[in-house]
Amino acid sequence: MKKLINDPDDVVDEMLDGMLAAYPDRLRRLPDTQVLVREDAPLDKVNLVTGGGSGHEPTHAGYIGDGMLDGAAAGGVFSSPTADEFEALIGACAGDEGVLAIIKNYEGDVMNFETAIELAEMEGIEVESVVVDDDVAVEDSLYTSGRRGVCGTILVHKAAGAKAAEGAELAEVKRVAEKVIDNVGTMGMALTSCVTPEKGEPTFDLGDDEIELGIGIHGEPGTERTDTMPADEVTDELTEAVLEDLDVEEGAEVLTIVNGMGGTPEMELFVVNRRLQELLGERGIETHDAWVGDYMTSLDMAGVSVTVCVLDDELKTLFDAPADTPGLSVR
Amino acid sequence: MKKLINDPDDVVDEMLDGMLAAYPDRLRRLPDTQVLVREDAPLDKVNLVTGGGSGHEPTHAGYIGDGMLDGAAAGGVFSSPTADEFEALIGACAGDEGVLAIIKNYEGDVMNFETAIELAEMEGIEVESVVVDDDVAVEDSLYTSGRRGVCGTILVHKAAGAKAAEGAELAEVKRVAEKVIDNVGTMGMALTSCVTPEKGEPTFDLGDDEIELGIGIHGEPGTERTDTMPADEVTDELTEAVLEDLDVEEGAEVLTIVNGMGGTPEMELFVVNRRLQELLGERGIETHDAWVGDYMTSLDMAGVSVTVCVLDDELKTLFDAPADTPGLSVR
Repeated sequence: MKKLINDPDDVVDEMLDGMLAAYPDRLRRLPDTQVLVREDAPLDKVNLVTGGGSGHEPTHAGYIGDGMLDGAAAGGVFSSPTADEFEALIGACAGDEGVLAIIKNYEGDVMNFETAIELAEMEGIEVESVVVDDDVAVEDSLYTSGRRGVCGTILVHKAAGAKAAEGAELAEVKRVAEKVIDNVGTMGMALTSCVTPEKGEPTFDLGDDEIELGIGIHGEPGTERTDTMPADEVTDELTEAVLEDLDVEEGAEVLTIVNGMGGTPEMELFVVNRRLQELLGERGIETHDAWVGDYMTSLDMAGVSVTVCVLDDELKTLFDAPADTPGLSVR
Repeated sequence: MKKLINDPDDVVDEMLDGMLAAYPDRLRRLPDTQVLVREDAPLDKVNLVTGGGSGHEPTHAGYIGDGMLDGAAAGGVFSSPTADEFEALIGACAGDEGVLAIIKNYEGDVMNFETAIELAEMEGIEVESVVVDDDVAVEDSLYTSGRRGVCGTILVHKAAGAKAAEGAELAEVKRVAEKVIDNVGTMGMALTSCVTPEKGEPTFDLGDDEIELGIGIHGEPGTERTDTMPADEVTDELTEAVLEDLDVEEGAEVLTIVNGMGGTPEMELFVVNRRLQELLGERGIETHDAWVGDYMTSLDMAGVSVTVCVLDDELKTLFDAPADTPGLSVR
């Protein structure tokens, strides 16, 4: 399998340098780390940090900027940053109002971030954390106890980031993050496996007439392998699983994401969005905003995930607030 | 080859409806056409229109919005809109200050747009047009006489759109579009062929250890098939061809685009951007702005194109001006 890379061992390092070369006014890299932080991180507000394995771009560093994140640590492809890297990240983003760490529920991320938080607290930095577990497909997986954290994480960045930008204190920013986590669900599917730079071969095999439902973002197995289906049926399967998990009622207002997994043409994402919005309309559910694009990817995997977040007035205001990052722009 | 679609015959129609469902406040569809226009198109400025085959998303309709386009016609996958559709587009976007049509140099687009322009002029609409031919790889191709219009087209939308937003008259907006066309070059390459919905198979065959340089955006053949190369060598080949064509001199300021062809992970685009910016630095060329992402795609093709536009003060100001579209946001 062919990739536009040099040495697989250098791919994360070179990617980060390529991001810095694209956004020199927005980002800086902490020396001798894979941590990117805001060039102009304001220290008079709660700062938001996250991180995790690489291969999910624009997650994580693509959401650094006004109204979202202040820094992000990048691990190797699909592997967690070390506790040292997370500690450096927290230290660099520690202002006067404390730090909120947003952690996707994967065992390595949780363990290493928690170690880093303990170390930071010993240095007198006020840190709170939340763990995102929005994937409704599986209760436990190869890499998690409990549900996986996937594309819904972007909505935690967005709402908590907007709350922090308002000048809210740490406990309030954390409350908003938890409100999103309580009200968001995601389910994904794959047409093809992803191929990691190191291995150079598909992580799992899918036949030419097969798809896999309920996949995660690391090529880990899903819940069901089936024959290929029309896009509308795929959309219905994913959406209904999410709506059922969230117990979304008629009259609810939601924000939706149709997320490409990295190798999916935008044309197909819009075909999925068409059916998603039609289905929500049939159920009497009102879409406040619909995002379509690549937000939380899995290298070159062809596939899609559907995210639904149930809104109240506070979340609507926070999702509508301005954000200015390479991966997401709201005005 | 698997795709997230329903009936291949419906894919463009369903994609357009999915776009409308995502951006109901921004876009509207002209009845019985595949033409999308701004929901709130201002009629007191020069309006910009474009169009062409589908499969290049976010091109074309993804650039409708403040500071860029006012409308776009979508043809079938890789096939030109009809003259009737182009005529409807021009008519819907005709305000008091006239219309600029931005045409990529493909024979069907040029022929049908020119017919539509003649018809619109007979109805008393003032229309000017420009033809973009930024692909430095081939002088003539399967679908063109003269060079192909590819990713540099986005820069024509951006600069001419900013000029129109300033309130400039039609001749001035056209002059700016032509200035971009005179100063922009692009070259692309493919790791894999694209697969059209209708055919369901690769448009051309590339071995597991082969890449193709100089490809266009429809899976048409390139200029050279070679063994796979490291990303840095690929970047050098593409960039040097563009710099030579444009005769870029030391001290020049440029805007660059590293454009994904649809199936390329963002990670790989940043690896290419890293080498691109390094190479420009070695040549004493200064990057004013570097865009990295999927701007002009070819369905699910894995590959990349490099675009360089040589700037003067006027173009710098116009590229820096605000734009607010689904496909591009500048503040």
